[in-house]
Amino acid sequence: MNGQNIDVEMAEAESGSDRVRELLEISAQLFAERGFDATSMRDISKAANVSKALLYHHFTNKDDIYARVALSSSRHLNDFVEERIPADGTAAERVRAFMVATASFFAQHRPAWIAASNAFWTDRNRQRVDERMARRDQFEKRLRQLIREGIEAGEFREVDPADAGRLVLSAINWMHRWFDPEKELSAEEIAARYADLILHGMKRG
Amino acid sequence: MNGQNIDVEMAEAESGSDRVRELLEISAQLFAERGFDATSMRDISKAANVSKALLYHHFTNKDDIYARVALSSSRHLNDFVEERIPADGTAAERVRAFMVATASFFAQHRPAWIAASNAFWTDRNRQRVDERMARRDQFEKRLRQLIREGIEAGEFREVDPADAGRLVLSAINWMHRWFDPEKELSAEEIAARYADLILHGMKRG
Repeated sequence: MNGQNIDVEMAEAESGSDRVRELLEISAQLFAERGFDATSMRDISKAANVSKALLYHHFTNKDDIYARVALSSSRHLNDFVEERIPADGTAAERVRAFMVATASFFAQHRPAWIAASNAFWTDRNRQRVDERMARRDQFEKRLRQLIREGIEAGEFREVDPADAGRLVLSAINWMHRWFDPEKELSAEEIAARYADLILHGMKRG
Repeated sequence: MNGQNIDVEMAEAESGSDRVRELLEISAQLFAERGFDATSMRDISKAANVSKALLYHHFTNKDDIYARVALSSSRHLNDFVEERIPADGTAAERVRAFMVATASFFAQHRPAWIAASNAFWTDRNRQRVDERMARRDQFEKRLRQLIREGIEAGEFREVDPADAGRLVLSAINWMHRWFDPEKELSAEEIAARYADLILHGMKRG
């Protein structure tokens, strides 16, 4: 699977339409720049150069668009990362792969990532919030498991897997605030540097 | 200086009024819960149980209220933290104090912290953004300096101060997303645990 095409595949699976994919990408960009509340259906139709009628043909309302954008930033994350964890690696290699893959996924879906992050505190759609939370919990659980395996194998010292997992996710999650795709280091390189720092602190010995 | 009273002192210095302080606190709460765009002057006046006329007597507009709320979450941070860095401590003790003090300050100003964080991507007031950025850069520079001193003293290994500084700040900044003041661990205790993990990884030897 080519990561660059995830949004495409996803939107097509959902609607069978290139146009929907394009509308979702434009919406993600606007939500990221302005926030959900400050973006109107009119703004989206203008930016996409389509009529509002056409927009309402494809989407029930702005909430519907937002739901698809926000979910696209997380729905495929868990699988994407899981596929990139080497089955036969050391615990350090596996945690590092988890970090690099997560950063890579976020960088590939940057507008949706920023939009979803912006809406975290203000999203009032209970079901949507619950779905994202459940997926996030599962993701965090998987990371803790990787850390626990390292401790049990004697590779990591006896850190608290919850604390260490939070540190890992904080480092990557916070990147949406300052990571600049125009700058020298890629998201993957930054994640690898964080991995060096954190894993060095977890190493037994 | 009692941290709990920072907002009070600040608002009083600015306006000489307990009422302004109260209005800012109520506004911070609403901005944190709903986001800036979804909070109206009417919402604030209703929540504060004052007339809109009175609100406009104290503030030019919603931007003005927001500016004071957002700045209150950062304006005093640098001094608050600086005062808590032990002059004669080891580098590890100094970095740890930096982390614990930052978490403590944020926890004490939680609604303003969340509100300011929410508005990061969507704030269009250039001057306000620049002021916050400048203060943030200064804060980050100070942390890198503490790390560099530890490397020069031979206490830390040769980490990149910029990477290590970002890891420290990410860990603390991301806390606004999950830290729950009702739960067992205080913000300071969580920061101390992060300090253990990160400083262990930075220690030479």
